[in-house]
Amino acid sequence: MKVNILLYDGVTALDVVGPYEVLCRLPGTEVLFVADRAGPVRTDTGYLSLVADASLGDAPAADVVLVPGGYEPPVARGPLHEWLRGADDASTVTASVCVGSLVLAAAGLLSGRRATTHWLAMDALAGYGAVPVASRTVVDGKYATAAGVSAGVDMALSLVDHLAGPVAAQAVQLGLEYDPSPPFDAGSPAKAPDPIVAALRANRDQIFRLPA
Amino acid sequence: MKVNILLYDGVTALDVVGPYEVLCRLPGTEVLFVADRAGPVRTDTGYLSLVADASLGDAPAADVVLVPGGYEPPVARGPLHEWLRGADDASTVTASVCVGSLVLAAAGLLSGRRATTHWLAMDALAGYGAVPVASRTVVDGKYATAAGVSAGVDMALSLVDHLAGPVAAQAVQLGLEYDPSPPFDAGSPAKAPDPIVAALRANRDQIFRLPA
Repeated sequence: MKVNILLYDGVTALDVVGPYEVLCRLPGTEVLFVADRAGPVRTDTGYLSLVADASLGDAPAADVVLVPGGYEPPVARGPLHEWLRGADDASTVTASVCVGSLVLAAAGLLSGRRATTHWLAMDALAGYGAVPVASRTVVDGKYATAAGVSAGVDMALSLVDHLAGPVAAQAVQLGLEYDPSPPFDAGSPAKAPDPIVAALRANRDQIFRLPA
Repeated sequence: MKVNILLYDGVTALDVVGPYEVLCRLPGTEVLFVADRAGPVRTDTGYLSLVADASLGDAPAADVVLVPGGYEPPVARGPLHEWLRGADDASTVTASVCVGSLVLAAAGLLSGRRATTHWLAMDALAGYGAVPVASRTVVDGKYATAAGVSAGVDMALSLVDHLAGPVAAQAVQLGLEYDPSPPFDAGSPAKAPDPIVAALRANRDQIFRLPA
């Protein structure tokens, strides 16, 4: 199975590496990181670069195409969207993490489809023609979308289950010792204290910036 | 707060990026990725490179020093261990993910201390003089160690709580939408089906290789 993961300037590292770490551990999987140009791509905080090994033009077709979120997700029309539509034509699964679903939707791939994104971007997702669903993973046809940042790990495990079955998925989960035990139960706006939810709403631009 | 995260050939990407993504979202935090030499470092699968922005010799002292796990964790004596002991002298917190604790222990930093690691490496951790504890995060003095791969996210949230308090930790958790919901409950050897546990035990060398 071939997996192409898109990188772009300001991408969020965990959106990329969470699902990558799950998918790459399925035997027989090859992962290729692709970007406008091959070479290092700076992530959103500026502290880490991930390396793309192929440019969009040089990337062979893949079974799974994954679009991570980032600080300014590339929602403007352009060559990237053309590439995405072509990659989607060839894929078995087209997936996203966080505001990566806005990129898929802006490229016209989620029109009328159920999809999810970061809890702070649900309205924006609707604005691009998708039907927002507040779930951690949403699958509609061949489109698998994950909620914010860390949700890509859960989505990728569901994909491994879908593609290779529950034994493979559980083996990957055990290998990564993914037995989550956060010290707080504050990972969704329904669970976090109201003042913390309000503070993040008021400062959404620190997490990502979307066109008005 | 300054955080130095060690990279080395064959490092596991999620060991690095999980805690990085948590720690970097604490306001006022600066993260620096360091390695033997500045430049791209290939991760364990060969599919992804992360970029070190400083060599060990050029990295200024940091408050938090983090050692991730990898396929062949650098447990042999050498300049890296000397650097680690110096970094530890200057740190407020010295942390590890997965078999990164074996590196700390081999460098002499965990002698007689309680610590954890990947469930498949508990015996090896004892061999380097630490006292293995089968918990997702173990804190002993200024040493915080996490279990396998994905446990670095939970450990880092505990660190943020310790360093900046529960409101900060919950804000980071909500920003990352870390409300884990894996499709299976198979993330520890106590929970996964026995044949899957046995298969991973029999193939431990595919996950990491340790000196005999």
